[in-house]
Amino acid sequence: MKKMIIASTSTIHGSRYLEYLLPTLAVFFKNVKTILFIPYARPSGISYDDYTKIAKKAFIKINIDVKGIHEFKKPKDAIEKAEAIFTGGGNTFELVNQLYKNNLISTLKEVLEKGTPYLGTSAGSNICGINMKNTNDMPIVYPPSFTTLGCIPFNINAHYLDPIHGSTHMGETRATRIKEFHIFNETPVLGLREGSWLEVLNNKVILNGKLTARLFLQNNDAVELESGVEVRL
Amino acid sequence: MKKMIIASTSTIHGSRYLEYLLPTLAVFFKNVKTILFIPYARPSGISYDDYTKIAKKAFIKINIDVKGIHEFKKPKDAIEKAEAIFTGGGNTFELVNQLYKNNLISTLKEVLEKGTPYLGTSAGSNICGINMKNTNDMPIVYPPSFTTLGCIPFNINAHYLDPIHGSTHMGETRATRIKEFHIFNETPVLGLREGSWLEVLNNKVILNGKLTARLFLQNNDAVELESGVEVRL
Repeated sequence: MKKMIIASTSTIHGSRYLEYLLPTLAVFFKNVKTILFIPYARPSGISYDDYTKIAKKAFIKINIDVKGIHEFKKPKDAIEKAEAIFTGGGNTFELVNQLYKNNLISTLKEVLEKGTPYLGTSAGSNICGINMKNTNDMPIVYPPSFTTLGCIPFNINAHYLDPIHGSTHMGETRATRIKEFHIFNETPVLGLREGSWLEVLNNKVILNGKLTARLFLQNNDAVELESGVEVRL
Repeated sequence: MKKMIIASTSTIHGSRYLEYLLPTLAVFFKNVKTILFIPYARPSGISYDDYTKIAKKAFIKINIDVKGIHEFKKPKDAIEKAEAIFTGGGNTFELVNQLYKNNLISTLKEVLEKGTPYLGTSAGSNICGINMKNTNDMPIVYPPSFTTLGCIPFNINAHYLDPIHGSTHMGETRATRIKEFHIFNETPVLGLREGSWLEVLNNKVILNGKLTARLFLQNNDAVELESGVEVRL
C-alpha cells in the first residue's frame, strides 16, 4: 500500500520552504512524530546538517520532528525503522550516487512499497520514477546506474518549463530534450510544473496543485492532464 | 600541435546553421577538401544521414565536402585518415556513449593532439574538456564513463546563460549548478555564451566572438574573460 507525495519543487516563488505544501502534509503525515530526512542531494552543495536544519524548520510548524539519515550509524536500519521519509531536492546525480554507495536503493523501494509514507521534492521526486534520465540536473558525479526506485510506472521531469515564446536562446527546450529521450526509451515522462504534486495511494496516482501537467508518451503527441485527475498511461 | 575551434553553439539566433562561423572556418580549414562529420549527438533525435546533410549544406558554401563517420565501415580508420573533423551538437550523453561504443575516444584524442584540425559545436565542444560533467543535456542514455578527450585543461559549459533577473522559476541557475560541481570536482569550468568560441593552437586557448566568457574556479569567485584574451587558469 504505497502512500507518497511526489512534488515538483519544495518551494514556490515568494513563499518559504515547503510552505505551499504544509496544509497537505499536516493531513498526509497525521500521527507521524518524526520524519527521516535524506539530504544527499545537497542543493548548492550545503552540508547534510545545514540541509536537515532547513527541513526541521519547516516540519516543526506541523509538529513533526526531522532526523537526518547521516545521524544514524546504519542508514539502512534508519530507513527500515522510519515512521515516514522525506527526500529533499538538489542534485539528482549525487543523490542517486549516495543511495547506491550506501546500498539503500532496494531497502528504500521495499519500505515504500510496504507503505511507509514518503515525501519527495524535485530530485527526491525524480528518484520515484523508473530511472533518473529526465532530470534537469548537471551530471557533476557519475553514479553507478541511472535506475531508480520505480514506485510509479513513469519518469518525472520536475520543474517542468514550457518553451519560452520568442526566446533567442538556442539551447534545447525541455520538450526537445524529452523528445530526444523517447528516441532511446519507451518510458512515459510526466512534466510536473512548479506547484504541482502527485499523490500516490497504492497504484493510484492523482495530480494535485493548481496547474495542469504535461504527459509525454513515445511516438505520441504530448497531452495536458488536469489537476485532480488520475494519471493513466 | 593542436588546431581546434570549440564553439558554444552551431547556430546563433536569426542566422543559419554555422553561418556566423563560416568566415572563420574558411580560413581555419584552408586547403581542406573533405571534413569527417561525427553526427552521434543527434539533436532532436534526427538520423545520422539527415544530420550529415545539414552539415554538408553549410560547408559547401566554403567549398568543403562533408562525409558522415557512419558512412565508413571502420570509423576508427576514418578518424585516423581524416583531413579534418567536425563533431556537431545534440545530446552529449548519447555522443559520449557512441564514442565509447565505437571505441573512438583514444583515437580521436590522438589525432587531435597530432594536429588534425577540429571543429566542435555544443556537445561536440563539451567533449573537448576533461569530462562531460558540465553539460546542460538530459541524461537520456547511460554512457560507460563521463571522461572525455581532455584536449583542453578545463571543462566547457556550452550555451552559458546568466541568471535571469527577476525569474520566478525555482530550478537551479547555471551558476548554482557549476557551484555544486565544484563541491565534488577541482576542474575549472568555462561558461561559453552563444556566439563565443575558443581557438586552440597547441596549448594556447584564445577566446573569440563578441561576448565575454565566465570562468569558474573551485573556491574562487567567477571571473569574466574578455574576447581576444588567452584563457589561463
